[in-house]
Amino acid sequence: MAEGTWKTAITKIEPNKVAVRGYRIDELMGRISFGEMAYLILKGELPPPAVGKLVDAMLVSSVDHGATPPSALAARTVASGGAPLTTAIAGGIMTINRHHGGAIEECMRVLLALVAFKHEKGYDAITAAREKAAEFKARGIRVSGYGHRVHSDDPRTRRLFELAAEAGVAGEYIEMGQALRQAIKETSGKDLPMNVDGGMAAVLCELGFPPELGNGFFAISRTVGLTAQVYEEITRERPMRRIDPVAHEYDGPPERSLNA
Amino acid sequence: MAEGTWKTAITKIEPNKVAVRGYRIDELMGRISFGEMAYLILKGELPPPAVGKLVDAMLVSSVDHGATPPSALAARTVASGGAPLTTAIAGGIMTINRHHGGAIEECMRVLLALVAFKHEKGYDAITAAREKAAEFKARGIRVSGYGHRVHSDDPRTRRLFELAAEAGVAGEYIEMGQALRQAIKETSGKDLPMNVDGGMAAVLCELGFPPELGNGFFAISRTVGLTAQVYEEITRERPMRRIDPVAHEYDGPPERSLNA
Amino acid sequence: MAEGTWKTAITKIEPNKVAVRGYRIDELMGRISFGEMAYLILKGELPPPAVGKLVDAMLVSSVDHGATPPSALAARTVASGGAPLTTAIAGGIMTINRHHGGAIEECMRVLLALVAFKHEKGYDAITAAREKAAEFKARGIRVSGYGHRVHSDDPRTRRLFELAAEAGVAGEYIEMGQALRQAIKETSGKDLPMNVDGGMAAVLCELGFPPELGNGFFAISRTVGLTAQVYEEITRERPMRRIDPVAHEYDGPPERSLNA
Amino acid sequence: MAEGTWKTAITKIEPNKVAVRGYRIDELMGRISFGEMAYLILKGELPPPAVGKLVDAMLVSSVDHGATPPSALAARTVASGGAPLTTAIAGGIMTINRHHGGAIEECMRVLLALVAFKHEKGYDAITAAREKAAEFKARGIRVSGYGHRVHSDDPRTRRLFELAAEAGVAGEYIEMGQALRQAIKETSGKDLPMNVDGGMAAVLCELGFPPELGNGFFAISRTVGLTAQVYEEITRERPMRRIDPVAHEYDGPPERSLNA
Repeated sequence: MAEGTWKTAITKIEPNKVAVRGYRIDELMGRISFGEMAYLILKGELPPPAVGKLVDAMLVSSVDHGATPPSALAARTVASGGAPLTTAIAGGIMTINRHHGGAIEECMRVLLALVAFKHEKGYDAITAAREKAAEFKARGIRVSGYGHRVHSDDPRTRRLFELAAEAGVAGEYIEMGQALRQAIKETSGKDLPMNVDGGMAAVLCELGFPPELGNGFFAISRTVGLTAQVYEEITRERPMRRIDPVAHEYDGPPERSLNA
Repeated sequence: MAEGTWKTAITKIEPNKVAVRGYRIDELMGRISFGEMAYLILKGELPPPAVGKLVDAMLVSSVDHGATPPSALAARTVASGGAPLTTAIAGGIMTINRHHGGAIEECMRVLLALVAFKHEKGYDAITAAREKAAEFKARGIRVSGYGHRVHSDDPRTRRLFELAAEAGVAGEYIEMGQALRQAIKETSGKDLPMNVDGGMAAVLCELGFPPELGNGFFAISRTVGLTAQVYEEITRERPMRRIDPVAHEYDGPPERSLNA
Repeated sequence: MAEGTWKTAITKIEPNKVAVRGYRIDELMGRISFGEMAYLILKGELPPPAVGKLVDAMLVSSVDHGATPPSALAARTVASGGAPLTTAIAGGIMTINRHHGGAIEECMRVLLALVAFKHEKGYDAITAAREKAAEFKARGIRVSGYGHRVHSDDPRTRRLFELAAEAGVAGEYIEMGQALRQAIKETSGKDLPMNVDGGMAAVLCELGFPPELGNGFFAISRTVGLTAQVYEEITRERPMRRIDPVAHEYDGPPERSLNA
Repeated sequence: MAEGTWKTAITKIEPNKVAVRGYRIDELMGRISFGEMAYLILKGELPPPAVGKLVDAMLVSSVDHGATPPSALAARTVASGGAPLTTAIAGGIMTINRHHGGAIEECMRVLLALVAFKHEKGYDAITAAREKAAEFKARGIRVSGYGHRVHSDDPRTRRLFELAAEAGVAGEYIEMGQALRQAIKETSGKDLPMNVDGGMAAVLCELGFPPELGNGFFAISRTVGLTAQVYEEITRERPMRRIDPVAHEYDGPPERSLNA
């Protein structure tokens, strides 16, 4: 063993026992949601129930965005060559990178920097945001997490912030996210609401996750949608078809509501 | 558009509206768990709450199995070359295939065939299982989903079946799974309890999922563990190290309980 | 070391010495072509020079097929999300599977079976091919490696067979490939020349490669084209664009000749 | 077609004609080596024959480095889960990144910068190298492409430079590579010969390739070795084994020579 024994703090395996961060999985099953499990394994501790619910909501929010995003198209294209389900899902996940989902990490870095700047200067949020927004404008920087090519006001972001408030974790990062929207509007004249990437970024900052995990959360969530996309491709389409990224139509169930 | 417009029944995208299988995501957020969302997007309908809880438990059960499975080692190895987080996660997911996780799909096919055989012959479960177990033995076939190289009796499987009973979906597939264990024991003298793959297989059959999605559920669950494994590799180890698949030690939190 | 030392017969590494199948790489450099190296590492022995030239020609033949094949589209799509060059190339390579490139392996299996059948029955090639073509027709089987959606008579196949003849390795597999074309024509009325996959299949059979390596050769060849496709995507297009699989135009150098 | 027709300058496809950078593939087959084809498709023009031979040598040089590099281990690990050949090869290729192969690109950037600096200052190579080596030392920067954990003097690099000289392309980048070795030795007391990554870097600079393609060349070359590694894993080992990265032994042909 040239390099000695290495250490891992995630999961302990013993005969008839699998324990994640100290908790036996069979004890957790049926008692915590998958979102709580994701929080536990990535952060090392179980979240309070309301935070667990927020994590579930965050994972629900990005589960799928139809057949247009490059991850869905890559996954379907890999499947159309005849690759197994998991290879095609992997093809989708590796497409999530700097330009696709990467806005979460970038926006987290901006919010972390702005909140640090606010403390350093003793400013309030809007003052810090205005100073930085002017600087971004001068340097031609477009802040990730604001605006969307399809949605002018993303209802998923609003819902995330409501749930964060209910969980008692709506703090200075969400405040700064909203201050920056206001400052960008004043500076550029454009009202760009936070998109779902920006919303996830602010919530992940509130929960103390590092920016490097931004695309991890997106990948965890989107794996479900990619599985559905690949399975539909395999069962509904012929192999080797030319997959038009735009010319597709939704023919699933009509709009319906939980309250119906 | 050489090949005309194609159809998808998964997600409808309109400005300020994203609806999965007809339900607006922002309405679902905070009201359903991630497991319920996985059920909805893969099956087309929302599950009853107890079934949703069962799906969450199934996803929790396979979230991670330490650093030894090939998916964890592949993901860590890809990361050690310097690839981004999502590329490394993808490297792990594509490792889930016939020999790794594939037991779920194979066991589903066996259970589906045995239950069909039972109906065809008008047998009860144990009679059908005995006839097939003898046939498997004669043909030298080892049934997937039974026995484990580490665990002699996997507590995760027992817990899955309890939760299936609570949800009112413990039916003829779980019964057949247990009958087959009994029949294998009589035929071969070996008592091989269902492992977690076999447990997931029986539950997925009860819920009406197709065998092709067996590794899909495993991949959805394991993506979380792979994210933790890759993140630990990146933050805790040096690049290009030689990753010994056996010589590692757990140094995380000691065993603890939800009840403590 | 739970499982003892394992063995590999490919490459020996010692300080200042790297030897592939016994030959030091630095001795091989400048003295053999890359095609000869591929033959050496995959088969264990160096080919005669004319066979090496044939392998180079085979690798040249499938280097790229424009932007339409799913491997090129998957690679470009992965790149458009911001993944690194090698991740995007990998996305293309994993798309090469049963339906894309897989015809090489399938056609190899058919040719191997037909030549075995010919020997078993003491037939000549055309008699064996006719009997099997009738059987394929009766069972509704479409033989891989014949016909093409774009090319009615692929000049690459003809050239491969010429070079195989020059190398003295045009034997019973190429003969059978051509007999089967004739038999299919008689049986179905359709004249389907062997496409480049069929051509590679026949040549790989002549060279004694196993069918399992069919897509290996295709992947080796196509990696070059995928590198060019990904590099063009990164340098010429904007991220996250919607890549139409059909609506593209060639704007490279006009047709030219080595003889010009 | 929302975004109009896009352009590609790589390959033109017409019925019975496939032309790469203007040359019909069937005309090229048997007349150029695979290395010349790689040069043509990546650079747009055919190289002079001696340069083609140099490219073949470069691709031969990095074809495999045994079972220890992370790309070989990742590819074997993916295969051991049961994935198809091409999925496992892809798993290896995506492992080639910043820390694995990435030295080529990094060393190209250093050589390009040093040669530019030399011209800017009107220095000779060794003067420029000394000034920069001192700066690197002061800033604690370790230059990529020098030294190796196994090889103290890599014979592949020496051979590459000989072939570059024969091809008449050994110019100021190879000169600078050697000057920098000398300067590092004077500055740090350590004699670190250029490794094969550094050698490829200098040659790729001489040939006018951009640094972004450094890992492209490495991936093209290594795909062959990865195919051999995966095929050996599939045919020689049992699935799901624990692949020790160190405890393996070479049992292939003993050392032999082209001249024997």
